[in-house]
Amino acid sequence: MSQPRTIRLSPDDNVVVAVDIVQPGASAVGVTARERVVRGHKMAIAPIAEGEPVRKYGQIIGFATKAIEPGAWVHEHNTAMGDFSRDYRHAEDAKNDEILPPEMRATFEGYVRPNGKTGTRNYIGILTSVNCSASVAKFIAEGVNRSGILDDYPEIDGAVPFVHGTGCGLAAYGEGFEVLRRTQWGYATHPNLGGALMVGLGCEVFQIDRMKDEYNMVEGDHFQTMTIQATGGTKKTIQEGIERIRAMLPIAAKAKRETRPASEVTLALQCGGSDGYSGITANPALGAAVDLLVKHGGTGVLSETPEIYGAEHLLTRRAVNRSVGEKLVGRIKWWEDYTARNAGEMNNNPSPGNKAGGLTTILEKSLGAAAKGGSTTLRAVYEYAQPIKEKGFVFMDTPGYDPVGATGQVAGGCNVMCFTTGRGSAFGCKPTPSIKLATNSQVYASMTDDMDINCGDVLDGVSVQDKGKEIFDHVLRVASGAHTKSEDLGYGDLEFVPWQIGATM
Amino acid sequence: MSQPRTIRLSPDDNVVVAVDIVQPGASAVGVTARERVVRGHKMAIAPIAEGEPVRKYGQIIGFATKAIEPGAWVHEHNTAMGDFSRDYRHAEDAKNDEILPPEMRATFEGYVRPNGKTGTRNYIGILTSVNCSASVAKFIAEGVNRSGILDDYPEIDGAVPFVHGTGCGLAAYGEGFEVLRRTQWGYATHPNLGGALMVGLGCEVFQIDRMKDEYNMVEGDHFQTMTIQATGGTKKTIQEGIERIRAMLPIAAKAKRETRPASEVTLALQCGGSDGYSGITANPALGAAVDLLVKHGGTGVLSETPEIYGAEHLLTRRAVNRSVGEKLVGRIKWWEDYTARNAGEMNNNPSPGNKAGGLTTILEKSLGAAAKGGSTTLRAVYEYAQPIKEKGFVFMDTPGYDPVGATGQVAGGCNVMCFTTGRGSAFGCKPTPSIKLATNSQVYASMTDDMDINCGDVLDGVSVQDKGKEIFDHVLRVASGAHTKSEDLGYGDLEFVPWQIGATM
Ligand SMILES: [Ca+2]
Ligand SMILES: [Ca+2]
Ligand SMILES: [Ca+2]
Ligand SMILES: [Ca+2]
Ligand SMILES: [Ca+2]
Repeated sequence: MSQPRTIRLSPDDNVVVAVDIVQPGASAVGVTARERVVRGHKMAIAPIAEGEPVRKYGQIIGFATKAIEPGAWVHEHNTAMGDFSRDYRHAEDAKNDEILPPEMRATFEGYVRPNGKTGTRNYIGILTSVNCSASVAKFIAEGVNRSGILDDYPEIDGAVPFVHGTGCGLAAYGEGFEVLRRTQWGYATHPNLGGALMVGLGCEVFQIDRMKDEYNMVEGDHFQTMTIQATGGTKKTIQEGIERIRAMLPIAAKAKRETRPASEVTLALQCGGSDGYSGITANPALGAAVDLLVKHGGTGVLSETPEIYGAEHLLTRRAVNRSVGEKLVGRIKWWEDYTARNAGEMNNNPSPGNKAGGLTTILEKSLGAAAKGGSTTLRAVYEYAQPIKEKGFVFMDTPGYDPVGATGQVAGGCNVMCFTTGRGSAFGCKPTPSIKLATNSQVYASMTDDMDINCGDVLDGVSVQDKGKEIFDHVLRVASGAHTKSEDLGYGDLEFVPWQIGATM
Repeated sequence: MSQPRTIRLSPDDNVVVAVDIVQPGASAVGVTARERVVRGHKMAIAPIAEGEPVRKYGQIIGFATKAIEPGAWVHEHNTAMGDFSRDYRHAEDAKNDEILPPEMRATFEGYVRPNGKTGTRNYIGILTSVNCSASVAKFIAEGVNRSGILDDYPEIDGAVPFVHGTGCGLAAYGEGFEVLRRTQWGYATHPNLGGALMVGLGCEVFQIDRMKDEYNMVEGDHFQTMTIQATGGTKKTIQEGIERIRAMLPIAAKAKRETRPASEVTLALQCGGSDGYSGITANPALGAAVDLLVKHGGTGVLSETPEIYGAEHLLTRRAVNRSVGEKLVGRIKWWEDYTARNAGEMNNNPSPGNKAGGLTTILEKSLGAAAKGGSTTLRAVYEYAQPIKEKGFVFMDTPGYDPVGATGQVAGGCNVMCFTTGRGSAFGCKPTPSIKLATNSQVYASMTDDMDINCGDVLDGVSVQDKGKEIFDHVLRVASGAHTKSEDLGYGDLEFVPWQIGATM
């Protein structure tokens, strides 16, 4: 009998996932199937006693409701979540993750900034306080990028307008305003920018001078601001903006790439357009890459709170301490309130379609997304766009919606992004390069101009660990300046989308 | 003694507004001042008995709390709103507005569309179902606009990408989704577009095929759709998108301007960056233009609900019938709920600064904004982005925030916009040209490249009615193809901002 393909996602797992249909009598990882296991479903590879945990991704996805023998199909008829969900067990599974000493860490070539942070790109950012200055920012960027004045500065990646739809018609205090302010500050001070000019209209709610005051921002060679009203209208502001950037260029161009440890990488983890393969190919492979990055002293940033909803107690167990775990639980409760007051609800339960595809519990479904974060200790939990200061595996609370989630991660300081996609996302980002990981070979082939790495070959036998190593190596190449597909395509001018919370007045 | 400048905003008014300080003994409109009236404040020009209405803009702004003699200063010490606010008196002041017979109406040169509507521009729109296709839409537009393929089509104004930050991460049902769907449909079928291509990613919540079904939209020479996932990625979608538009151009170019009555003008009324002059110069002058437009059979669309809050009972009195009045009251109540559930509140009361500037009651303050709508009967109330079908003066419920409010108005079918500004807005819009009206001569001079008309000369004696006629004539010129300042500057690619209601997931 032929050997059907299966995937064992972690050495700790007591189940494998069928890639091909497993027929009774067929052999998979040395275990003989006792019954038919269709694609995407699980087969036990060890005896699991009643009440014992079922493990996938090296983590608990449920408990056996009766004794399960090796070779048995594992699904709702013999597995359930129990009352696991009510038990956070803060920090119970926190580990002393292995971190390599500095001299053994992998390296990349990055831009060291005056504040000690390392950039992977060297853009000039043109920030906007409000939609009312969006066109002017675009015209300034076009003026800089098309005038030839950058020709003398090969070390500068270009001028990027960060335009958006908000900045006025919102309350001047409260969480909606705070989120926008953190986002703007995070971009203005991002290590991937060699300089930043912030342009406003003048009369908007988001006052540039107030932001400068609140963050003690000082204008100078790297950061300047202006408003259309004070400068005398559109034409004068464009002209003056181009002149201001022209004066910044020689300073920004002094930045040179130098060898830096992988611990200077802060990697944003994203998925968008997920499919049935996301949780068994690209996401676990990215998780393996994050485990490597953490071992080399770096930081991986898991986000997309709605997608880990229902599995938060797996992250609380991995939390370094109770306070980090409780911060996560606090954000989950915030989301329950946020959706309820907007006439919605949080619900990440497996749908009938999910169940038909082999997902048994909400834990298993959420772990498919959380697998991007690997297996190390959760070191910190951040709110949207807060500056990321801890090394290791951390969480930032964001929506799952790609441009909004990614904007929060970049504002937090992420200098590289890995983005898994099954349906085929075309997402690109500035100033942070986004590496796109296809979950299956079909989407990799059909959107080859957009995809950086094919993780579909995990289905054909490439190990999750080997794929993780490939991703880790590519992250360092991209951090050193190698272009992603979306950079070559020119993405990134329209994907800055700060999270809007609250009423638009 | 010198003659201080004052403004009488309507022949029905029993007060004038001081432009210069009026000293005791000075004469204004034939009335001798009994006391000092500072700039922006009101002086009685007729006796007002206790309990009688004080009229400004031809409308009630409050009631005399004691007898007021001609020449007296009118403010909080002798005027209050009473319990006026609790009394809607639906349709009590509805009038039979004078409408000119068709043969006497002014005309302009517009594009008659197959559905009978008239456009004032002839753009090709590239709509996006989601932020994930924003860059591709931009690249297609750049490909069309810069390739030279438009050179053979002087009747086509160019390709415009309508990009935005939403379309996924929102609930697939409910008011947030409805608002987005109406907005997209309104743009796709806008008379200022000669053709429209809608580009999606493929897996987003806002499904293009669902929209087509729900609106019975048929693809053809004027409307086509595509997704990046089905087309095979970014490069192929750009190439295919340019080809699709290339095929649309000969059809779109067949549109020729022909003489149309002013009744085909649907005028969006906006204000942004208001100042102390807005309510006495540009807004009433625009209101006079709207009265003229209504007389010629056309439509004026007042919006910005938060700015008329507290004065809704003035509009309900002008409503054509109780049902229209009650629809307005319903939207006001919706806003109270919307802001409350977002931890905010509706409050348009005059601030201490407003009062120091001469605004006595919330009616007077809100009337300063509502003055843009003129004095005719309120014929209909629309929700955001609903198609505007009634002629005459109508209201559309939108936020006050300029790009969001304007997007709703354009989606409703507005084919020209008038935008008053005191602080100096640089707003521009596509596909609807936006005429900017400065409220004072200083901002007109300092932002002359952005301002189309100076209404500051109303302070120097130009009558509100004459200014209204000037605006009305300019609206028709612009409707016929004359460029606005913001069109010449290139605004409009980034100001499409659909109202986002609800949680971002
Ligand atoms: Ca996702
Ligand atoms: Ca996402
Ligand atoms: Ca033309
Ligand atoms: Ca306004
Ligand atoms: Ca406005």
